[in-house]
Amino acid sequence: MSAIVSLVGAGPGDPELLTIKAVNRLQRADIVFHDALISEGTLSLVKRGRLVHVGKRASRDSTSQEHIHELLIAAAEKYRYIVRLKGGDPFVFGRGGEEMLALQEANVAYEIIPGISSAIAAPALAGIPVTHRGISSAFLVVSGHCPDVYQPLLQDVSPHSATVVVLMGGSHRRNISKIMIERGWNRSTPVALLSAASTEESTVWTGNLEALALEAHSPETPVTLVIGEVVALANIHEFQKEAVHAR
Amino acid sequence: MSAIVSLVGAGPGDPELLTIKAVNRLQRADIVFHDALISEGTLSLVKRGRLVHVGKRASRDSTSQEHIHELLIAAAEKYRYIVRLKGGDPFVFGRGGEEMLALQEANVAYEIIPGISSAIAAPALAGIPVTHRGISSAFLVVSGHCPDVYQPLLQDVSPHSATVVVLMGGSHRRNISKIMIERGWNRSTPVALLSAASTEESTVWTGNLEALALEAHSPETPVTLVIGEVVALANIHEFQKEAVHAR
Repeated sequence: MSAIVSLVGAGPGDPELLTIKAVNRLQRADIVFHDALISEGTLSLVKRGRLVHVGKRASRDSTSQEHIHELLIAAAEKYRYIVRLKGGDPFVFGRGGEEMLALQEANVAYEIIPGISSAIAAPALAGIPVTHRGISSAFLVVSGHCPDVYQPLLQDVSPHSATVVVLMGGSHRRNISKIMIERGWNRSTPVALLSAASTEESTVWTGNLEALALEAHSPETPVTLVIGEVVALANIHEFQKEAVHAR
Repeated sequence: MSAIVSLVGAGPGDPELLTIKAVNRLQRADIVFHDALISEGTLSLVKRGRLVHVGKRASRDSTSQEHIHELLIAAAEKYRYIVRLKGGDPFVFGRGGEEMLALQEANVAYEIIPGISSAIAAPALAGIPVTHRGISSAFLVVSGHCPDVYQPLLQDVSPHSATVVVLMGGSHRRNISKIMIERGWNRSTPVALLSAASTEESTVWTGNLEALALEAHSPETPVTLVIGEVVALANIHEFQKEAVHAR
């Protein structure tokens, strides 16, 4: 009886945005190692498996990541169906690649089950298409928790040539706004700051690059920052009215 | 009795990669307007609704897009549950934004149901994480069917600063390779050419930027092109062995 580790994307939060495959894996799991931000509704799909919280909110030191690898490999000795459940998609800033390599090295069978990434779904659920004919034919997704990473890229990309999506960039939004305005983006470029997309707690702030630098709104949960003309397509009031109408 | 149009992402092809919400909407639908590349398995989830094929493979003239808008609006007069089913995610090069705006203008209620985009899932299913700590903290997704779109962006982005994902870029791969090498990317930069991800027909070609220009492989289905050091993480042989092992 050989073990299999499923690296599963949990999507943005709403359990209905899990894939069929993800639900199947959660239901059959003997043990589930999950991140901090997985919703209650999602965890409640685990029928009989043991739940192990391995989230690390602020600190992302390599020791804890190493420890997760050890836990997964040890679980493969003991259980048949092991699930590693990660918010969004396991390969979008989820360190799923590192876990995959550790499993490869330990000769543990694994599979990758993609999930809905907030990079695309958070704007979509606010009525913002990351691409739109005649407005944007490309989007850049960048991690916003370290200037060394986002600054060179934001300085590379010509103003208004692509939609820019910054994940985990809430606390750096002033600096991001400054870099982009200096690079030549209009101060009036529409911006959305989205948190907890697809859940009851979701918040949508819209404004422009200039206002972003002044915005005090600081949601607790990770935010998705969307910058570009496509944001103007979200008739937020209209969208919310329709969404209510739809229930 | 008010009508609702659901703009639903069908994901990359495997029906098990549909979301729970997408399956629910297909099952309750009175009528489903779907694209050309939706898999049989996905369409078979429609229990009682009428299936209407509105795909346009090569020609993407605005008349047909206008006609789809008319069909959706007319259906909202006649039916309660209308589904517009699009491959991948409706807002990633899917023209879902245009359909959303048309529905808004016609005062038809709608909802957006994100889907798994091939931009992230095609590489993931080949064992390629679009981001990986120490290798890539960003990815650019760009449409590859028009040089006016991809050329300026590929000239902007500094070599090796982000993973580049080109959708619908199969027939332009020589030009894409040329632009990136001229921009300063190493000729040996790993590249993957992925088609029909998540289905029985999936193909994975890996090589490098130089070889991409010479590659004759031309799958019929749309390809996802992934360029960057992360591609080297896909130990394709290893991955396939494990995938077989996992069955």
